[in-house]
Formats: sequence, C-alpha cells, structure tokens
Amino acid sequence: MDIRILVGKRVKELRNKLKISQEELADIAELDRTYITSVECGKRNISIVNIEKLAIALKVTLKEFFDF
Amino acid sequence: MDIRILVGKRVKELRNKLKISQEELADIAELDRTYITSVECGKRNISIVNIEKLAIALKVTLKEFFDF
Repeated sequence: MDIRILVGKRVKELRNKLKISQEELADIAELDRTYITSVECGKRNISIVNIEKLAIALKVTLKEFFDF
Repeated sequence: MDIRILVGKRVKELRNKLKISQEELADIAELDRTYITSVECGKRNISIVNIEKLAIALKVTLKEFFDF
C-alpha cells in the first residue's frame, strides 16, 4: 500500500487512541487542521520534520510511529 | 538533535553496513547521488516517499530505519 496512505491511517489510529480531535492534534503539533485532514486522507508526502512533530504530539517515538 | 541530522547519520550508518557507495545507493533507490550526499549531511527535510525508497534500498523496514 502507498506509504502516504499507511502514514495517514497511522496518524488517525494514534489520534483516536488519545481521543483527541484533528483540531486538537493540529494545535499540539503546531500544524494546520486542514493539513492534518489531508495527511490522514493519505494525500500528503509528509516531511520528516512534520512526522516528528506529529509523533511527539501523539506521544510515540518514530520507531513506534512506524510500527505498522 | 535535529531530526534531519539523525536521519542523515542513519542513512550513512546503514549504507556503510552494506558496504555500498553513495552512488550505488543512489542507483538502487533511484535518487540522485547529490541528493544522497545532502541527506547524509543532514541538509534535507526528506519526505516519507523518499525515506521509504532509501529504507528499501538499505534493506530495512521503516521501523528498523527509525530505531536510533
């Protein structure tokens, strides 16, 4: 499966685990809410700097983030 | 440490383990040799699509790639 889709699903999965909204995740990670939406939809070729921001906000290490 | 630096060090470490040159890695991953050089120097905010290409070329999973 396309890595952009896999990353999007993973962000959504971890966000749901924390029971926070896209807007809350966006606030914590200092990213735009519409950006989170497009990442979760697998539409973004997200950069490592933003992946790190999301992983920190989602309370996982990068190793844990990519454990899928 | 900056994630771009950490990723660059990791690419270099895994490439050295395989005993292949930057040029050989570039060929396998279908990326430019100068791009590999700048990634290893920590100068690139590399995207997930290119990280996946490098991980495949370096014979590791993404989880293993980020095990640092």
